[in-house]
Amino acid sequence: MSTPKKISGFPERLPAQRMVELKWEDIIRKHYESFGYTPLQTSVVEEVETLRAKGGDVDKEIFGVSRLTRDEGNDVDEVRLALRFDQTVPLARYVAQNYSNLQFPFKRYVVAKSYRGERAQSGRFREFTQADIDVIDHGSVSIEFDAEMPRIAHKILGEIGLPETVTHINNRKLMQGFYGGLGISNPMLAIQIVDKLDKIGEDGVRESLVSQMQLSEDAVQACLKLAKIKSSDTSFAFQVAALGISNDTLTEGLDELSYVIDALDDLPQGSIFADLSIARGLDYYTGTVYEGKFKAYSDFSTIYGGGRYDNLVGTYLNRNLPGVGISIGLTRIFAKLLEEGLINTKESSPTHVLIMRYEDSDMRSLRLIAEEMREKGTNVEVYHKAAKIGDQIGYANKRGIPFVLFPSIEPSKPHEIKDLSTKKQYPIDIYEWAVPAERQGHTSRIVTTQIPSIKPV
Amino acid sequence: MSTPKKISGFPERLPAQRMVELKWEDIIRKHYESFGYTPLQTSVVEEVETLRAKGGDVDKEIFGVSRLTRDEGNDVDEVRLALRFDQTVPLARYVAQNYSNLQFPFKRYVVAKSYRGERAQSGRFREFTQADIDVIDHGSVSIEFDAEMPRIAHKILGEIGLPETVTHINNRKLMQGFYGGLGISNPMLAIQIVDKLDKIGEDGVRESLVSQMQLSEDAVQACLKLAKIKSSDTSFAFQVAALGISNDTLTEGLDELSYVIDALDDLPQGSIFADLSIARGLDYYTGTVYEGKFKAYSDFSTIYGGGRYDNLVGTYLNRNLPGVGISIGLTRIFAKLLEEGLINTKESSPTHVLIMRYEDSDMRSLRLIAEEMREKGTNVEVYHKAAKIGDQIGYANKRGIPFVLFPSIEPSKPHEIKDLSTKKQYPIDIYEWAVPAERQGHTSRIVTTQIPSIKPV
Repeated sequence: MSTPKKISGFPERLPAQRMVELKWEDIIRKHYESFGYTPLQTSVVEEVETLRAKGGDVDKEIFGVSRLTRDEGNDVDEVRLALRFDQTVPLARYVAQNYSNLQFPFKRYVVAKSYRGERAQSGRFREFTQADIDVIDHGSVSIEFDAEMPRIAHKILGEIGLPETVTHINNRKLMQGFYGGLGISNPMLAIQIVDKLDKIGEDGVRESLVSQMQLSEDAVQACLKLAKIKSSDTSFAFQVAALGISNDTLTEGLDELSYVIDALDDLPQGSIFADLSIARGLDYYTGTVYEGKFKAYSDFSTIYGGGRYDNLVGTYLNRNLPGVGISIGLTRIFAKLLEEGLINTKESSPTHVLIMRYEDSDMRSLRLIAEEMREKGTNVEVYHKAAKIGDQIGYANKRGIPFVLFPSIEPSKPHEIKDLSTKKQYPIDIYEWAVPAERQGHTSRIVTTQIPSIKPV
Repeated sequence: MSTPKKISGFPERLPAQRMVELKWEDIIRKHYESFGYTPLQTSVVEEVETLRAKGGDVDKEIFGVSRLTRDEGNDVDEVRLALRFDQTVPLARYVAQNYSNLQFPFKRYVVAKSYRGERAQSGRFREFTQADIDVIDHGSVSIEFDAEMPRIAHKILGEIGLPETVTHINNRKLMQGFYGGLGISNPMLAIQIVDKLDKIGEDGVRESLVSQMQLSEDAVQACLKLAKIKSSDTSFAFQVAALGISNDTLTEGLDELSYVIDALDDLPQGSIFADLSIARGLDYYTGTVYEGKFKAYSDFSTIYGGGRYDNLVGTYLNRNLPGVGISIGLTRIFAKLLEEGLINTKESSPTHVLIMRYEDSDMRSLRLIAEEMREKGTNVEVYHKAAKIGDQIGYANKRGIPFVLFPSIEPSKPHEIKDLSTKKQYPIDIYEWAVPAERQGHTSRIVTTQIPSIKPV
């Protein structure tokens, strides 16, 4: 059988690329957990009807799942299954199903793949990883969570080392109140049109507002003026006030956005903006909306996005369960940086130390050395066969393994380690030596818990 | 819309369960990486033809994937796609596709989900996580890798804290050589029959060997005698020799199995056995085979299994690319321990410290305290609203959060931390305090690499 072709839209990485991608996932996880978000995984499969519940024509985006051969009486075929296309709908369904077993506010994170059946094109993927956090609560979600999301995102993107990013924040209540105050009867349509400012420009937005909504020239002007307001502090509120509209919804939106911007004022200047042009396309946002972007790549749409949704989880339960969340588009960001040639792919192995094996080596003692070093947290391989030292060092170099160990042949002499980057070789005590922190590489370190995960039998 | 029912065979966890499951995944990852295995992820989707290449009637097991609405000219519909049912076939396909970009021996691990369209029943899942390691090499794979796999599995299962396990090891060459020496023309069929010893017993095996293979009573006796040989050291070889068969294939099998058993003799007595009844059902094994089992649960089939396969990757390339690997059945093990009531689910949050928020708290200073503590590796939440202290402590207790912090109101006094298990409260310096190692919980600690993952722009 010949080798199958790669399947378009389903990206796979080479080992050295995956090492970096996994490091990013670890950084995301660390920061999400550092703010107390709980890890969760839902099934990759949802009922088709669940995926349709969010509304819109989603069928084209959905990959259905069914057994190639069906037999009668197999219940799996009685429900139609499909792959999830995001993590928000599965979260809503999960919360509804497990409502009585969850503690609220329910804070969860997930780093996992979703699937969209769209046409493959540059920057568009059919299989992609997103890193989401969301908070769901009874009745109301504290505005503190709205304020903390861009902070977490900022810390993550900074530690990953992405080229400079900026987060634009707006509030749907502010837009809806303002549009309502202008006498616009369908503020949602206006929001969707203004959301295209980036793509169709000022003239395009003007034309759409007139042709689709029959707005007056004054109303169009006001909408465009609102969309142009941008500030790194809470001064946007004065600019809005100057436009002469006022009502409760608008005030609520202004207050919420002011709180969020104010709460982030310790982040570096230029990384956070109130930007009243930002709307996010999706229907379900009801308050704060976020959009994170690269400063350098204007062609790249969104690094992360999200916002507050008051009515999504309530789709299933007769309860008021608002939420707020963000989603980092990991696969798209990684692909962009790969394309720009910015990903360092020097290490294709998590190994720190390769132990040299001589023609007459006693494997038993080499295995023992390896095990002792692993006890100290070092990732160790014993070279898998007797070979020329040059070949063994070549193996280490090709994989980006930083150290090789020359085992002592005489019991009275210590083993020696060689740093392949500095070329320095020095004796070590394997019961003491640990990889210097700055040379530990991509690998995770797990801290065992105080509570054994399994009860004694 | 009412809440959808749970989908049978697609297990989902509650947060406190997922915390444990993720801890297990971290332990697996740590040990796989400590032996130098590289992380890799393939797409969850494969071409249907790829999945069929391994042979057998697999269609019933396969979940096909296709867009609900198809439009013309969309190339995704030109290939038929399906969800992978294991990680071995995707590995073979991946190695073939990326052959020139990989370094051999290619050692990779993966902890990921696979899908089987089988009937849902106890212990059987349609979506399940497996944790695999494999080594693929040109020409031949060093026997060292055969020997290292049970060592890694043993370390993982021990650190997870599973009830006592035992690994049974055999070698297909040994069986094939022996059966060949008996004059059996189809050794593979004999292997498959003997593999059922556990299920159908000695009489069942005897009957099958006679009815399906027309073996003589002497040959049947010899097969059964071989299958009964079991030893914790290399003495099995003498017992085989006593059966009076000898040929090159048998000798090779005996030598390989002896090497593996000998290399593991430092593991605790009773955890490793040469067990000549073990065959593993799959066609593609050609040498060492492994089967890990619980000592206590005889009804539970396999904790982990695997072996050596010489011809799998070569399906696609005109090259000799043998491999050896094991797969740990994470979902099945976890479900078993849940069923036995052995999973500790005390923590549903990764948070170490909850900062108390008073009616008059300045959120800016509480956020600052939280950020300082996060710098020291502590997972911190500020309580999300002003509330009674008892309610806030209740929130921490419900989630298994070990500490609460009472922020000082007077600048001259230190903040105080309270250990919720010992009830002790004491002043701390937030710039110094770190969670005691034994109280750090499930969360991972990531060590940043010496090589920045992104090049400077």
